[in-house]
Amino acid sequence: MSNNTKKPLFDVVAIIGIGLIGSSIARAIKKYGLADKVYGYAKTDSTRNTAKKLGYMDEIYDNAIETVKDADLTILCTPVGANLSIIIQIGEHLKSGSILTDVGSVKGSVIRDILPHISEDITFIPGHPIAGTEFSGPESGFAELFQKKWCVLTPLDNCIEVKLNILIKFWQSCGMLVDVMSAEHHDLVLAITSHVPHLIAYNIVGTAADLEKVTRSEVTKYAAGGFRDFTRIASSDPIMWRDIFLNNKDAVLEMLGRFVEDLTALQKAIRWSDGDKLEELFVKTREIRKSIILKEDETNNYK
Amino acid sequence: MSNNTKKPLFDVVAIIGIGLIGSSIARAIKKYGLADKVYGYAKTDSTRNTAKKLGYMDEIYDNAIETVKDADLTILCTPVGANLSIIIQIGEHLKSGSILTDVGSVKGSVIRDILPHISEDITFIPGHPIAGTEFSGPESGFAELFQKKWCVLTPLDNCIEVKLNILIKFWQSCGMLVDVMSAEHHDLVLAITSHVPHLIAYNIVGTAADLEKVTRSEVTKYAAGGFRDFTRIASSDPIMWRDIFLNNKDAVLEMLGRFVEDLTALQKAIRWSDGDKLEELFVKTREIRKSIILKEDETNNYK
Repeated sequence: MSNNTKKPLFDVVAIIGIGLIGSSIARAIKKYGLADKVYGYAKTDSTRNTAKKLGYMDEIYDNAIETVKDADLTILCTPVGANLSIIIQIGEHLKSGSILTDVGSVKGSVIRDILPHISEDITFIPGHPIAGTEFSGPESGFAELFQKKWCVLTPLDNCIEVKLNILIKFWQSCGMLVDVMSAEHHDLVLAITSHVPHLIAYNIVGTAADLEKVTRSEVTKYAAGGFRDFTRIASSDPIMWRDIFLNNKDAVLEMLGRFVEDLTALQKAIRWSDGDKLEELFVKTREIRKSIILKEDETNNYK
Repeated sequence: MSNNTKKPLFDVVAIIGIGLIGSSIARAIKKYGLADKVYGYAKTDSTRNTAKKLGYMDEIYDNAIETVKDADLTILCTPVGANLSIIIQIGEHLKSGSILTDVGSVKGSVIRDILPHISEDITFIPGHPIAGTEFSGPESGFAELFQKKWCVLTPLDNCIEVKLNILIKFWQSCGMLVDVMSAEHHDLVLAITSHVPHLIAYNIVGTAADLEKVTRSEVTKYAAGGFRDFTRIASSDPIMWRDIFLNNKDAVLEMLGRFVEDLTALQKAIRWSDGDKLEELFVKTREIRKSIILKEDETNNYK
């Protein structure tokens, strides 16, 4: 029972929004003993009922203020677009001296939305655990979701270091590797490694659905040739992704511009049967795959 | 020993090109007892030596004519762009009355390349087993690669039905579901379900590699957000894919045109913060994912 005798990092953690990420965090907190109590808030009856049945939270509230008022750590796990209305409700009810963080895939807009609505004795540390699946809802969560994945924190200039270290310790205890960078840089990195890939996956699946010469039934039947992987990405939560694109507009449009530029060159190479140019790119991209696999092996060894 | 007493479909099968597909076919033939003998041809010493070590072929030749002259079924498993030079070599040495097929991802250009070089007593049935992995080479093959996957055959108008049925039976015995359609339609269907998805995966990985504000090391580190799936696709065999794009130019450019059109509309929706338009697409694409999963379940039940 040694796990139970170790003092947990927090007395109370409040989770606002019980979807895939929120419910996975609650499970991880329980599994690794990171808080005495976990309180959760969900907007709808049906999510609250599902979460209650799953039973890994100590209290589930239909009132966000009630959920956060005693919490030492509050984690916003709602879609990025919902932050503003949530923080307007809970901002002045957060416990004095507590830490506020979030899990959004965009960081610049989150700071813009949150900061004006909290008092100076709250330490707000924007965060992004880069982990997920194509499934959503509390029933899709699992404690191991974060294992060996990266979490990026983008603390503000005046961040209290001891609080930052507690939050780093929290995510590390969930199994994550933690990096610290500016919100602006985070938003650029994620635009190319996540947001634009999702956008083009959504787009190709949409294009395929609207053809007149190839039926939708043929598209689904012969998906094994490559298309299937795109549909997995393009089945990610629609609201969450709508909010990401609206809130990381500048970086997404910049990266998308480069993608289209490169695609136009590739299109021209095909039209003019420039096999060397195609082969050169395809050899280069294979190398990048190799370095990702290598990096993952390093990460696994490091853990 | 009942398997050994059943007469196999063919006395001799010749496999031209021993890569992922060729070696998987040889293994499947042995596993399911589909031929008395399997002969293989590979261009390079190193491939022949690897294939010899793996040991699932009865003979491995450095001479394509020798390989095919006694074969009742010859399967071209070389990249699509190599067909012409191969058929110029072997065309007049194919066994009278035998079946010739291929496994290329493009069918129109294969017919154009092959047909002028074979005599009338050879039944040429273009084929495409839609199965593969991102790995290449004889050591990557496995007998179960074809299980529950679709194989498309695109017989010519004057195809002898009994020969077509033998080839259908062959692929079914490897575990595949077989469909028959025109070469032209195949090339359109595959352009959208496979060729354009590969092209945009190669393209985004290339774009990410060439950024100045985001390092390559950051791209590989944070690949879990979606990018990683694209790098898997973009690590497929460069030569094979170069040949596919060069040989299915018209259909690829047509589908790519539509993709870019749709992407431009999406780009505009982001620029003008049109959340409804984004959400509408993202909900639709999620439905398509569901129908693919449903179709796969049906396929599995059907088997």
